[in-house]
Amino acid sequence: MPNGAQSPSSRARSPINGARSLINGLVGGGVRACFANPGTSELHFVAALDEAPELRPVLCLFEGVATGAADGYGRMAGRPACTLLHLGPGLAGGLPNLHNARRAATPLVNIVGDHALGHKRLDAPLESDIGALAGTVSAWTRRTYHATELADDIAQALTAATGPPGAIATLIVPADVSWSDAKPDTKPDAGSEAAAPPAPTAARRGLVSVEAVTGAADALRSGEGVALLIGGEAARGAGLVAAGRVAAATGARLLCETFPARLERGAGRPAVERLAYLVSGAREQLAGVRHLVLAGAASPVAFFAYPGQGGVLVPEGCAVHVLAAGAEDVTAALEGLAEVVGPGVSPVREEARRPALPSGELTAESAAAVIGALLPEDAIVVDEAITSGIWLPGETAGAPPHDWLTLTGGSMGQGLPLAVGAAVACPDRPVLALVGDGAAMYTPQALWTQAREGLDVTTVVFDNRSYAILGLELGAAGGAGARRLLDLSAPALDFVSLARGMGVPAERATTVREFAASLKRGLAEPGPLLIDCVVPALG
Amino acid sequence: MPNGAQSPSSRARSPINGARSLINGLVGGGVRACFANPGTSELHFVAALDEAPELRPVLCLFEGVATGAADGYGRMAGRPACTLLHLGPGLAGGLPNLHNARRAATPLVNIVGDHALGHKRLDAPLESDIGALAGTVSAWTRRTYHATELADDIAQALTAATGPPGAIATLIVPADVSWSDAKPDTKPDAGSEAAAPPAPTAARRGLVSVEAVTGAADALRSGEGVALLIGGEAARGAGLVAAGRVAAATGARLLCETFPARLERGAGRPAVERLAYLVSGAREQLAGVRHLVLAGAASPVAFFAYPGQGGVLVPEGCAVHVLAAGAEDVTAALEGLAEVVGPGVSPVREEARRPALPSGELTAESAAAVIGALLPEDAIVVDEAITSGIWLPGETAGAPPHDWLTLTGGSMGQGLPLAVGAAVACPDRPVLALVGDGAAMYTPQALWTQAREGLDVTTVVFDNRSYAILGLELGAAGGAGARRLLDLSAPALDFVSLARGMGVPAERATTVREFAASLKRGLAEPGPLLIDCVVPALG
Repeated sequence: MPNGAQSPSSRARSPINGARSLINGLVGGGVRACFANPGTSELHFVAALDEAPELRPVLCLFEGVATGAADGYGRMAGRPACTLLHLGPGLAGGLPNLHNARRAATPLVNIVGDHALGHKRLDAPLESDIGALAGTVSAWTRRTYHATELADDIAQALTAATGPPGAIATLIVPADVSWSDAKPDTKPDAGSEAAAPPAPTAARRGLVSVEAVTGAADALRSGEGVALLIGGEAARGAGLVAAGRVAAATGARLLCETFPARLERGAGRPAVERLAYLVSGAREQLAGVRHLVLAGAASPVAFFAYPGQGGVLVPEGCAVHVLAAGAEDVTAALEGLAEVVGPGVSPVREEARRPALPSGELTAESAAAVIGALLPEDAIVVDEAITSGIWLPGETAGAPPHDWLTLTGGSMGQGLPLAVGAAVACPDRPVLALVGDGAAMYTPQALWTQAREGLDVTTVVFDNRSYAILGLELGAAGGAGARRLLDLSAPALDFVSLARGMGVPAERATTVREFAASLKRGLAEPGPLLIDCVVPALG
Repeated sequence: MPNGAQSPSSRARSPINGARSLINGLVGGGVRACFANPGTSELHFVAALDEAPELRPVLCLFEGVATGAADGYGRMAGRPACTLLHLGPGLAGGLPNLHNARRAATPLVNIVGDHALGHKRLDAPLESDIGALAGTVSAWTRRTYHATELADDIAQALTAATGPPGAIATLIVPADVSWSDAKPDTKPDAGSEAAAPPAPTAARRGLVSVEAVTGAADALRSGEGVALLIGGEAARGAGLVAAGRVAAATGARLLCETFPARLERGAGRPAVERLAYLVSGAREQLAGVRHLVLAGAASPVAFFAYPGQGGVLVPEGCAVHVLAAGAEDVTAALEGLAEVVGPGVSPVREEARRPALPSGELTAESAAAVIGALLPEDAIVVDEAITSGIWLPGETAGAPPHDWLTLTGGSMGQGLPLAVGAAVACPDRPVLALVGDGAAMYTPQALWTQAREGLDVTTVVFDNRSYAILGLELGAAGGAGARRLLDLSAPALDFVSLARGMGVPAERATTVREFAASLKRGLAEPGPLLIDCVVPALG
C-alpha cells in the first residue's frame, strides 16, 4: 500500500499538528487500522484521521472491545495493531484484553490521550495515573511532551511493539501535544531541516546457540518419554512444520501450549495436541515424559493452584530443555533441529476427515461435531468456548486448514472482540467466534462493531446459562454450595434479542438440525450472524 | 441488624477458613452487600457466602458493573460498599467505575482474589501486577499472606474505606489464604486466645479552626461578588441547610461543584445551582466573584483544557478561601459559619413547582419537563445523561425532594451500574437512571442484574444516536470532520431489544405522550423498566 502520508500532496498541507504527525508515523510504520473509543482529549487525532485514508478507524463502544479487537488484528495481520483510548479510565477499561494481548505477544500500540500538560496539575475529574496502568501490560510506555517529538516517539513505540517478540507499547499523548504545531523548527533546540518521520527499526529474532540445538537433539533421541512442547511462533508456518519433522524423526510427543495465540491446524497440517487446561488431563499427557524440550513455549504450569497440589506440571524426574524462548528465532531453531535429528523426514500430518453431521440432542459435544462437519477452509476460529469447547479440538482436527486463536491470558471477554479484529485483518477469510454465554457478556458491544463494519463473523454463543467452568472448579477447589452465584438462568439471557439490538442478525438453535442450518447460513452469507446455541451445562 | 457472624452458632462451626474469616470481618464491619464477579480464585469466598446470610451477594456479569454498583450503594447506604473481583484482569475491568468512586469519596472495599502464594512465581496466564492496578484508585492496598491475618486486614481495610473521607481500600486475597485454616493458633506466633475479629476503627472528621470560619465569614460579608461553593458532604443534610443559611445571610451566590457524589435537592431543600460543565457557562457563573469560599469542594477547574484557554475557572483577582476540605468536618464548619454570619436566618428554599406535562416533539428538553412533572418524592436520580441532561436541573429543581447522583470522575458507563447499587441500598425508594446512549453501552450488563435482583429502577436512555458530547467538544477544540467516529446511527442501537435480551421490560418512546406514559408506568410499577427515549442530538 502506498504511503500516502508522505506523498507530496499531504506533505504540502500545513501546519502539521501533533495529531497529524502521530498518524503519519503510524501509517509510515505500517499501521492500517485503529480500534478507537475516543474522548475529548483525542479529538484532534480523530479530526486528523480524515486526512489519512490509509488508517482505518474502527469505532468500538467500549474500550475492552477496542483492545480485544486490536489483539485479534495483531495476531492475524502481520502488522502492528493500534488502539485509541481516552485517558486513564479509557485505558483501564481496555486492560483486561490487553492482558490477553500481552500473553499472546501481539504487536500492539496504544495511543492514550491525556490532559494538556498545563491541565494535569489541576487534578481535573479525569486525572489519574495513566503510566501506572500502562505499565501493568506494556513493555514500553512513554508520555510525549512536545509535538515535534511525536514522530520519533511513535517510531520507538512501533519498534518496541513489533519486537521480537511482539509486545504492547503505550504512548500517552497530552491534548496540547496533539493540537500543537509539529514542525521541527517550532522546537527551540531542533535543526532547521524538516525530517521525514523516522521509520521504526525492524529487529530480527536472535539465533539460538548450537549447544541449544544439539542439547535438544540429544534429549529427544534419548529414547522413551520424550516430548516437544511448542508455542508462540512455533505454532504456525515453517516452525510448526519443522516441529512436526522433529516429532516424526524422534518419536517425541508433539504438544502445543494450552493457549496459543494462533495455532495453524487442520487437514494437512502437522498433527499436534494442545496441553489440557484441566490439571488432571495435562498431567496425563505429560506422564512418563523424561525429557521435555521447549520451543517457544514456557515450562507448563497449572492455570490455578488447588489445595494440596503443586502447580508445576513437569513430572518429577523430567529434564526440561529450552530450545528457544522469548525473542529467539524458534522457527530457525526448529528447522536446525529437524535437520539434525531427521533430515528428509516429513511430519505426521492430520488426515482430512470430518465428523458426519450428528443427530440427536444439541449438546456441546454434538455442536462440536456440527462445527467439525462444516468448518470452511481458511477459517479463523476464535475460541472462548470454555467448558463447551472441550470437544472442539477433536472434532475439528481434520477439517480443512484453519487458524485457531485462544484465550491466552485467561481474561474473560476476549472472544467477540478478537473476532472483530481478525475479520478486519483478514476480510477474505470467514471468522467463526465460539464463545461461552458468560464470556460473551463481558464485551457484547463487539457485535455492534461487527454490524457497523459489515464483518464476516459467525458467532456461536454456547448458551448453557451458567458459569459452568466455575461449577467445575468449585468441585476441584473442594467447595460446596453457592451455586446461585454461578447461575445465569434467572433471567435467561436472550442472545438473539441482544444481537439484534446491536444490528447483528441472530437465530436460536435448540436442535442439532437447527444449529447446522444456522451455521451453514452464517458461514455462507457475508456479514455477521449470531447463533444462540442452547446446550446443557457440563457436569 | 444483629451481627450473626459472631453468634454462638456460627462461631461453633469449625474450622473457620480464611474466606469465612474474611466474610465475618466484612459483616462485623457493617458490610451487607457484595457486588461480585468471581472466578476460580474466589470460589472459597463464594462457598463461604452460603453461611453468611447477612451478606447479600449481587452477581454482575462484568466487573465494571460490580464496581459501579458498589459506588452507587456506598453513596446511598451509609455503609461501606464491597466488591469481589477476580485477579488483576477482574480488578482492571472494574477500574473505570472505581475511578468515579474515588472521585465520589465513596467508602468501598475491593476483595480481589489472587493466585495461591506458591503459584505466583510460576507466572501462570492470569498472573499480573494487581498491586499496581489497585494503587491507581485505592487509598489503601494490601495483600494478605496468612489466613489468620485476614480478620485484622479486613478491619484495617474497612477503617481506610470509611475514612473520613470515604476512600477505596483494596485487599488482595491469595487463594490459599482463603482456603487455609484461619484459627489463630495455626499461626506460629499467635496467642492462644481466639479473639473476635477486630472491629474497624471509626474515625471522626477533623474540626476546622476558628480562623477558617472567621476568615470565610469576613470574606462573605465583604459585600459584592461573594460565592460559596459546596461539595462532598456539604451537598446534603445539615451541611446543605447550613450552606443555605450562610448564603441567605450574606447574599453569597450558592454554588455546588459540577459533579457532586450526592446532592439533595427539590422542593423545600436549600436552593443551590451546580457549576456548569461547559467552561463558558461556569465562567459566567463565576464572573464578578471576588471572594470564593470552598466548603467540601475543590477550587473549580475546567473538565478539559482547550487551545489558548487556561483551565483555572476562578476569575482573576478573586480570592479563594478554604472553609473545610478533605477529612475536615464541613458540616460542622458550615453550621459554625452560619451561626457567625446569620444566627436565626433561614436558607432560601426551593419552592414546590413542577413543569406542566409538555406537548410537541420529544426532545431532550421536553423529556426533561416530563421528568420534572412526574419525578416522585424521595427518588434517587442517577444522571449520566450528558448532553441530553442539560435541561434536567432546571426542570426538576422544584420537584419533590430527591437525591441526585452524578458522574463524579467523568469515566463513562457509570449510570446503569450506579442505579443497581442505589436500588440495592434503598429498596424502598424509586431509582431513576438517566443515561445517554453512548454512556449506556459501556456497561449494559447492569440491566441483567436489575432483572435478576428485581430492582425498582426505571432507566431512560436518551437515544440520540451519537456521541453528542464529542460533537460539541469537537467544536470547542477547533476540529472539523471525523463525524463518523462520533456517530452511533449505523446500525442504530435498539435498546428495547437489548433490555429484553437481559430480562428487563422495555418500551420505546418517540413522542412526549409515549414518554410520559412509559415513565409513569416505570415509576408506578415495581421492578425494572427501560425506556428508549428517542431524541434529536443537541446542536
